[in-house]
Amino acid sequence: MGKNVLVLPGDGIGPEIVTEARKVLELVNDRHGLGLEINEALVGGAAIDATGVPLPDATLAAAKAADAILLGAVGGPKWDTNPDFAIRPEKGLLGIRSQLELFGNLRPAILYPQLAHASTLKPEVVSGLDILIVRELTGGIYFGQPRGVREKDGGIREGFNTYVYDENEIRRIGRVAFEAARARNKRLCSVDKANVLEVTVLWREIMEELSVEYPDVELSHMYVDNAAMQLVRAPKQFDVVVTGNMFGDILSDAAAMLTGSIGMLPSASLDESGKGMYEPCHGSAPDIAGQGKANPLATILSVAMMLRYSLGAGEAADQVEAAVSKVLDQNLRTPDIMSEGMRAVSTSEMGDAVVAAL
Amino acid sequence: MGKNVLVLPGDGIGPEIVTEARKVLELVNDRHGLGLEINEALVGGAAIDATGVPLPDATLAAAKAADAILLGAVGGPKWDTNPDFAIRPEKGLLGIRSQLELFGNLRPAILYPQLAHASTLKPEVVSGLDILIVRELTGGIYFGQPRGVREKDGGIREGFNTYVYDENEIRRIGRVAFEAARARNKRLCSVDKANVLEVTVLWREIMEELSVEYPDVELSHMYVDNAAMQLVRAPKQFDVVVTGNMFGDILSDAAAMLTGSIGMLPSASLDESGKGMYEPCHGSAPDIAGQGKANPLATILSVAMMLRYSLGAGEAADQVEAAVSKVLDQNLRTPDIMSEGMRAVSTSEMGDAVVAAL
Ligand SMILES: CC(C)[C@H](C(=O)O)[C@@H](O)C(=O)O
Ligand SMILES: CC(C)[C@H](C(=O)O)[C@@H](O)C(=O)O
Repeated sequence: MGKNVLVLPGDGIGPEIVTEARKVLELVNDRHGLGLEINEALVGGAAIDATGVPLPDATLAAAKAADAILLGAVGGPKWDTNPDFAIRPEKGLLGIRSQLELFGNLRPAILYPQLAHASTLKPEVVSGLDILIVRELTGGIYFGQPRGVREKDGGIREGFNTYVYDENEIRRIGRVAFEAARARNKRLCSVDKANVLEVTVLWREIMEELSVEYPDVELSHMYVDNAAMQLVRAPKQFDVVVTGNMFGDILSDAAAMLTGSIGMLPSASLDESGKGMYEPCHGSAPDIAGQGKANPLATILSVAMMLRYSLGAGEAADQVEAAVSKVLDQNLRTPDIMSEGMRAVSTSEMGDAVVAAL
Repeated sequence: MGKNVLVLPGDGIGPEIVTEARKVLELVNDRHGLGLEINEALVGGAAIDATGVPLPDATLAAAKAADAILLGAVGGPKWDTNPDFAIRPEKGLLGIRSQLELFGNLRPAILYPQLAHASTLKPEVVSGLDILIVRELTGGIYFGQPRGVREKDGGIREGFNTYVYDENEIRRIGRVAFEAARARNKRLCSVDKANVLEVTVLWREIMEELSVEYPDVELSHMYVDNAAMQLVRAPKQFDVVVTGNMFGDILSDAAAMLTGSIGMLPSASLDESGKGMYEPCHGSAPDIAGQGKANPLATILSVAMMLRYSLGAGEAADQVEAAVSKVLDQNLRTPDIMSEGMRAVSTSEMGDAVVAAL
């Protein structure tokens, strides 16, 4: 019985990059006889335009039924001014994460040797960089209740959100991170603000409790402000970093940018059973949408993660990653990673080159 | 009538760096006939050890009575394990900020040309860097109620904090930032997470409202995750950045580290009337405390900010800043900014050199 993959192109450059990633997925599907059934659905701004809501029921149902989801990106200025907060493209993405309980977000920040010069950091600071940020994705301040804007005495408006985690939520993301560290270099840094925020005092306590079960993994703690500094100062000190939803959003983007190639970085968002949504770390880049300038490699590498984590096709995943490395060795570059002496290619040329390399 | 300065050495390297800064302040006091009265009090871990609490009543009263406060740094592992959250060194610092309503935190991130090589970023990315982060300091999730750890059904513990701002709080920090931008390069970037957090939707709205009063300042908005990326990618795109307490904590540390010389960066925390607390951007560095390795220049530059903003002695402030530049030109370096061919000096040698340069 073949598995079921749902493709959600989304907004901005989403459709372009997903088109290329789909070419790769279809080739792998044929070659490895995976028997995948691949469907597409609307999410984000595209869904708002077509149906009035960012996460139509049909899309949510298809997502629940799928074994894995490939997402392009959502959002854009066109929908940013909607005064109704529920009708924003981001709500489609957040809705899928939350409804499918995709709490374990894996965001690798890897420096490709072929792109070493692309980083704004000095080569000695980032060469060989390979860190994994594990971000909790379905809790924390992103989803905490109560939230909103209310009027106080005197008609003064006040906005409020709630940063909340219970011990079970912390424990399950902690386990994902400890397991990941165990499979890598056995060092886990938990990032919190336990000198100020009570919710992260509990976070730290649960991480300490868990560490008893993982004596082979070295656990450390760092305040989030210091972590932001250390990522700039000496990023190679990290192996796996685990943190909550909001801090993870900020730190994973900073970490990704250290590599100078955010167009190269995939991500996975997994539930308890290994089912997952896969998406590039970058956004929908509306400014370059439709121009063939977007880098499809992060999305193609997201397909590789999908093959490995949700489709049980580790060998195919290795092949996709090797093909990406090969096109870099062939000096093919989209504008975001272009440098002197390299060959400029468009989004679809890059996708075709990966297919050819496969 | 002379003004009143309260000195709070605090913990770790705090006493050492404050000793040097005090030398500078006393010299300036004599030379410019400022007639300052300078007193000292306990805060943080030092206060916990002596009195049982991080902010003794006597310290709070002295702080309220002072025209300006000079703080070293607070905190250290010795007090981190205290299960009573109210008895932590940080609570002393947070208590002063809050009780004195020091809501306007100015954190410049400046690259000293003499230390250009110290940054981990490539010279072309950071040379000439001069940005100002304006952080709201007495509201947001740092102080929001309710907060704590409670038990849910089934005895599951849950930690929670509240991220809250009302329009008046947003407006007053907005004005500080617009004024600062007006006095600089007239560009203000407000950082929020308005695609996810309602409290920052209000934040963005108030910033937009305010911008009508400052037509000469160009206002832009950026999501916090993108801001963390842009600080790494192209930090010189910023002039003034304004954001809330938590995001400001994270981004200002990242920005400071871009300069490679966090030991060089001062900060000011001001109330409505210009009264303020001045402190280095770095922490208490307990690992090097008492060894004469700490860089006193950030604290000395904090004295310069104090002279300018709270003591009406702008000329004296200029002289202190020029003296700091001079010791750098003399190739004197504490360990944190040491490089080949420079002369290594201790904390007190550096302080003495600034005094001599004055
Ligand atoms: C689009 C936005 C809601 C989202 C987030 O904040 O989680 C994005 O920044 C991300 O990191 O995937
Ligand atoms: C010590 C700590 C409470 C403080 C903060 O988080 O504000 C510090 O990190 C700072 O930035 O001044």
